[in-house]
Amino acid sequence: MTDERPRVTAEALTKCACAIFEAAGLSIDDAAKVAEVLVWANLRGVDSHGVIRLPRYLEMIEYGLMNPKPGIQILRETPATIVIDADRAAGAVGMSKAMEHAIFKAKNVGIGWALLRKSTHAGAIGYFARMASDADMIGMCITTSLPNMAYHGARGSGVATSPIAISAPGLEHAPLTLDMATGIVSFGKLAVARHSNQPIPEGWALTSEGEPTTDAATAAIPLPLGGPKGSGLALMFECLTSLLVANPLIAPDISAPPRGKRHNQNGLCMAIDIAAFMDPEEYKRSVDETIAALKSLPVSDDVDEILVPGERGDRELLARERDGIPIAPGTWKALEQATANLGVTMPETL
Amino acid sequence: MTDERPRVTAEALTKCACAIFEAAGLSIDDAAKVAEVLVWANLRGVDSHGVIRLPRYLEMIEYGLMNPKPGIQILRETPATIVIDADRAAGAVGMSKAMEHAIFKAKNVGIGWALLRKSTHAGAIGYFARMASDADMIGMCITTSLPNMAYHGARGSGVATSPIAISAPGLEHAPLTLDMATGIVSFGKLAVARHSNQPIPEGWALTSEGEPTTDAATAAIPLPLGGPKGSGLALMFECLTSLLVANPLIAPDISAPPRGKRHNQNGLCMAIDIAAFMDPEEYKRSVDETIAALKSLPVSDDVDEILVPGERGDRELLARERDGIPIAPGTWKALEQATANLGVTMPETL
Repeated sequence: MTDERPRVTAEALTKCACAIFEAAGLSIDDAAKVAEVLVWANLRGVDSHGVIRLPRYLEMIEYGLMNPKPGIQILRETPATIVIDADRAAGAVGMSKAMEHAIFKAKNVGIGWALLRKSTHAGAIGYFARMASDADMIGMCITTSLPNMAYHGARGSGVATSPIAISAPGLEHAPLTLDMATGIVSFGKLAVARHSNQPIPEGWALTSEGEPTTDAATAAIPLPLGGPKGSGLALMFECLTSLLVANPLIAPDISAPPRGKRHNQNGLCMAIDIAAFMDPEEYKRSVDETIAALKSLPVSDDVDEILVPGERGDRELLARERDGIPIAPGTWKALEQATANLGVTMPETL
Repeated sequence: MTDERPRVTAEALTKCACAIFEAAGLSIDDAAKVAEVLVWANLRGVDSHGVIRLPRYLEMIEYGLMNPKPGIQILRETPATIVIDADRAAGAVGMSKAMEHAIFKAKNVGIGWALLRKSTHAGAIGYFARMASDADMIGMCITTSLPNMAYHGARGSGVATSPIAISAPGLEHAPLTLDMATGIVSFGKLAVARHSNQPIPEGWALTSEGEPTTDAATAAIPLPLGGPKGSGLALMFECLTSLLVANPLIAPDISAPPRGKRHNQNGLCMAIDIAAFMDPEEYKRSVDETIAALKSLPVSDDVDEILVPGERGDRELLARERDGIPIAPGTWKALEQATANLGVTMPETL
């Protein structure tokens, strides 16, 4: 079976997405950043965080949830820390700014800790962690959003699938980049099972009524990774970000009748300057050596090879840079609709 | 069946452990700190990290793995960061020093990041994270040690069950304190299954030859939490600590023939000063509100109540402060041997 999805180059897709966001009211710089972060996810094979999100972003602008012309403000800072109010900016814009500040501070005092409040969907946060590793630093990012995951022991959602990303540069090797949610399964995987009418394993999800289920059609709330560990991490991420910027997401959402606070996110971008600790070249060589050692281990029967964090995405990026990015039919249709509405040209297919 | 384990007060047990470590060559301050951290774990019901470790610590001193009179040194620092060489100090001594420095730096610039190199077994690292939350800060600690956990996809160990602890203070509520390893199961739980001849679930462990097993008798290597997530976190913790202090633990251990580098650990202690971001009282109230919201959620059928990180330990602490700490027969015997060898008095039983 040949893949009949339309394929486009990253450049063409970025140009189109950028034009759409500009037409929706974003400045050209902000539109370019949001487009870049979405297409970065597509290039790496993480289509769940790619241009599939575009229609929802446009809807958020329409509903006033995402501010196309945000007045991003620094609320307070120290030599090592900063708090930024995103004024409901597109998440990619807010998180990029936060990581730029973190990197700047890390250059001065070894570490930079930037908190972002009242932002919106950030996309694949590995992107922001890589901004640090591209600058010879270690990057760490966290985002928090409204509860959508079960708290361990609760019959329903209590915390979010808050992700964490950590990126550390290699010398010959691409940066190690872990980007993981605190849930045991992603919403994307639940959707795939639903679309293919496959049952899901026990322990993956609850129904919207909070009952455990193996029926993908009724699976609505993912369970936390490792029970109390995953929901504990998600809770502590709320304490590290949301509560520290006085924009709690968990408590008001659970307490408000009816539940359903307006979409917003908080985020953390941390940068650690390797040069404050040792020669960056020596550090990066030790990352390469660690990767080589792990890859020398004997392989278990159920996998083909030993992979390190980010490696699968790096490979997919090479392939998609060469062959173009395949776009799912539903996403293509949504792009056609958005471009038609906003008077933007569709990307040429390969 | 009544519990026939001897019970002792925390004070008596601490005094005995302290006298043992002093007799083994530690300064009185260092001996008191190691004793305090071990008994803290016992008080909280985490007996796997309590005085059961004492014989091994004495052995490590005897073998030159733990230095009773370490020359702890600051190697480099910035206003926000510090690198400390522990000179093989007892882990509790090194980690406490690291967290003290992190707290001091956080008071000045909002955040403190202390890396510890060439330390030894730290004990329950929640203790050090709580040093920060007791000072109206958020604390985060990580330790890394020699590989003892499977790397995802490998037929054998490649990373360590490196734990992370995060502690955030409440107002009326005790600090939220998450303290979790990156493995799916602890060595303690594997030992319990082995002693009771119970099979273990699929996906918990490999044999020493790297084969998956459900036989507790042959289970030797725990598997990572959530496959690539747990081993990815453990790998990134190595990048955040060991590699940044030029004391890699993974690569040399995998590469060296035969494997078996000498026990040592690296650690990270981070403190974030709440006052640099907002009124600490307001922050702590928001922690309480978050806890109250989570506890208001409907409870699932398989648990009695919704607990937050650290809560079980806090309750056990109250009970054991009241009723004394029960000591397992094997641990009691080991204490008797150590006290006899070193001319120390055994603690009185209740």
